[in-house]
Amino acid sequence: MSFSEIRYAVDGRVATLTLHRPDQRNAFTGTMADEIVQACAQADADEAVRVLLVTGAGSAFCVGADLSRGRDTFDGKRLANRPSGPMSESIGGVPRDRGGVVALAFAAMRKPVIGVVNGVAVGVGATMTLPMDIRIAAESARFGFPFARRGIIPEAASGWFLPRVVGISQAMEWVATGRVFDAAEALRGGLVSRVVPDDDLLPTAHALAAEIVENTSAVAVAAARELLWSMLGAPSPWDSHRLESQALMQLGAGPDAREGVVSFLEKRPPEFTTPLGDGPDVVGVPRWPAPPDDVRPV
Amino acid sequence: MSFSEIRYAVDGRVATLTLHRPDQRNAFTGTMADEIVQACAQADADEAVRVLLVTGAGSAFCVGADLSRGRDTFDGKRLANRPSGPMSESIGGVPRDRGGVVALAFAAMRKPVIGVVNGVAVGVGATMTLPMDIRIAAESARFGFPFARRGIIPEAASGWFLPRVVGISQAMEWVATGRVFDAAEALRGGLVSRVVPDDDLLPTAHALAAEIVENTSAVAVAAARELLWSMLGAPSPWDSHRLESQALMQLGAGPDAREGVVSFLEKRPPEFTTPLGDGPDVVGVPRWPAPPDDVRPV
Amino acid sequence: MSFSEIRYAVDGRVATLTLHRPDQRNAFTGTMADEIVQACAQADADEAVRVLLVTGAGSAFCVGADLSRGRDTFDGKRLANRPSGPMSESIGGVPRDRGGVVALAFAAMRKPVIGVVNGVAVGVGATMTLPMDIRIAAESARFGFPFARRGIIPEAASGWFLPRVVGISQAMEWVATGRVFDAAEALRGGLVSRVVPDDDLLPTAHALAAEIVENTSAVAVAAARELLWSMLGAPSPWDSHRLESQALMQLGAGPDAREGVVSFLEKRPPEFTTPLGDGPDVVGVPRWPAPPDDVRPV
Repeated sequence: MSFSEIRYAVDGRVATLTLHRPDQRNAFTGTMADEIVQACAQADADEAVRVLLVTGAGSAFCVGADLSRGRDTFDGKRLANRPSGPMSESIGGVPRDRGGVVALAFAAMRKPVIGVVNGVAVGVGATMTLPMDIRIAAESARFGFPFARRGIIPEAASGWFLPRVVGISQAMEWVATGRVFDAAEALRGGLVSRVVPDDDLLPTAHALAAEIVENTSAVAVAAARELLWSMLGAPSPWDSHRLESQALMQLGAGPDAREGVVSFLEKRPPEFTTPLGDGPDVVGVPRWPAPPDDVRPV
Repeated sequence: MSFSEIRYAVDGRVATLTLHRPDQRNAFTGTMADEIVQACAQADADEAVRVLLVTGAGSAFCVGADLSRGRDTFDGKRLANRPSGPMSESIGGVPRDRGGVVALAFAAMRKPVIGVVNGVAVGVGATMTLPMDIRIAAESARFGFPFARRGIIPEAASGWFLPRVVGISQAMEWVATGRVFDAAEALRGGLVSRVVPDDDLLPTAHALAAEIVENTSAVAVAAARELLWSMLGAPSPWDSHRLESQALMQLGAGPDAREGVVSFLEKRPPEFTTPLGDGPDVVGVPRWPAPPDDVRPV
Repeated sequence: MSFSEIRYAVDGRVATLTLHRPDQRNAFTGTMADEIVQACAQADADEAVRVLLVTGAGSAFCVGADLSRGRDTFDGKRLANRPSGPMSESIGGVPRDRGGVVALAFAAMRKPVIGVVNGVAVGVGATMTLPMDIRIAAESARFGFPFARRGIIPEAASGWFLPRVVGISQAMEWVATGRVFDAAEALRGGLVSRVVPDDDLLPTAHALAAEIVENTSAVAVAAARELLWSMLGAPSPWDSHRLESQALMQLGAGPDAREGVVSFLEKRPPEFTTPLGDGPDVVGVPRWPAPPDDVRPV
């Protein structure tokens, strides 16, 4: 598949999705949104891929929505007239927020997604990273949730994701002020787990991906990813206990559980063999209460 | 409106609510609770006001419940005989916790509330700040949740707010020990976002308020505040995606969204014009599942 | 009661549960699980006990599941044939995860539980600590959630507890990589609240327990523990406000509330007298939505 506003490449077991409008500092468009959704589906379906990295081409990660339409940038009546594509679907009579479609596509992955924030990540450039499992940043990265400075609301389902990632107080301070802040503040606030010198960013991301690829079972990681994100929305631990009991029953008797224990006892790297596609019933997208039809993730 | 146990003043776009019983270190009473609720309503209704600061007169923020009734301080049978006012309403046959009425009044604001903790904030003096969006503290401030040391339970709806603000483990440690701790521990634990020298506290609070007033749209901040606090209680991101799509449709076509983009492109400060009262449907109090009649916020 | 794989002792008002298979680095077994559940019930029923400490004998806290069955360690078909005991109960046709039974037993305590992590705590050794109220660690402690490295899923209801204790992003990074990490990383990530030199661990734990025992009311702590853990699963603050109002009405008129205020005014240590067994209706296990019969906590 060929893309115009992103690049997608697979190297070994790691896929990299690169936002690729470097001359526009990777400003977000409907086309870019469509292509991200397609690349997510491609990475998720490809058995060779274990981890998805998301980064930006050039000096920025993503400066947010493309403002080249000027004053009408956020006027939904124009968006409603866009040709076919995920963003043209309506939800309750209005067009679906395109950032939300992208965010929910990341959330629906069965494979870990790592945000590799190489530069400025503001607006949807910041909110699209929230459903990713891990976010790391270059020292020169900057972040911001400037929606209130543009007269609009945070999007990309960040109303739900942001308070869960950084806590409600940090979320409200960043959203109410709309300020742009540096990588050190992002680290202190829990938005990223690591800040490294710019030149170390990609090597760090690949080392993190390798830590997953070389040591873990694909079906086990997929089941864990589903479990944790699902239970984030559960009112009690009961469902967690039941789901885990069922998953242990299925995974525990499988070849990866045997290899996991045996390789550990033999002090050698594991060689897991179960393809994700043959995974047990427990592997799937997060089991939040079923999405209404009009907001299904992909 | 004139108050006896608080002060309320508006300076420019910023209202300040000052707990004002300095000789009693701003100990909390039923009268103070009633007045806080009224001041919140006044600040929320006043289009001139964009941000509400809450602080204490004298050396303390609030030392907690007024203990001048001694051993009967927390005896609800006496509270039940109080004259009319929010606290005399009953809930399930018992008087409503007055701290909870105050906390839910702060939570119901459409405007950001900043806790400006100038000194000791313990008991309800600490819990009333939890629904505020931002909390900053002077170096000499101290905090505590000493309810178990008084033989009672945390209140002001802090059972819900505290674990969401600081995490369940930090919440349980502070509540189970009931210890008083300093501003540095409050900062490490996520209870406040900033600690500054005492003399810098009010200037810092006003700078933070100015960051909001000068840069953001009132309707956009109100919608974002509603969104984030509401979604904190949502089981999945679906509602977030739908609410954001609807809000983007309404706000995105409005004058503030146009001014937000144009002022940014022209590299000048924005001049937002939409009054909060004319805001779109999406602006309101947090849309938690509808409150039962007996615990409606105000 | 006599135990074979744990030790249980009461010293003053503090009970200590010690995982006790030092030659196997306290590897977790079905017998150990049964005994932990019994010791929890015993500590909870004993009026003399105010706080439960949980630690490990020898150099480790708990290295995780006992792998001595090798490749069949996690094969549920063998677990299903275990003789009677909590773990032999089935849940939806599969055996209940034994780690989950232990975790829910800790969660169901009315008394604070402090995890005293003296050494390696990985797998169920780490996840069983998540429902504890406080976790402290020795400098030499190490942690890990290596489930995906063994081809299985996180358990002990950690799908629900882990993201609430450390946040979803930190949870996903530790679970997706399965890495073992040191006490300093555990502290930064919010998994423990304090790291102390190895020799200071037990004294620190006892000082923390004493802070609770000497200053707080047993019924008040039990009510607060129930409140905070329950409300962690509530969609809105309404239930919190109602439960707190009811609890204040009951506790506020009781002898501990009187003693709490009077001792404070007299600047002397409190002498609380209300036995937990005579506590008000508000004291109980967390009121999450009622557990289905097949996953009841104990």
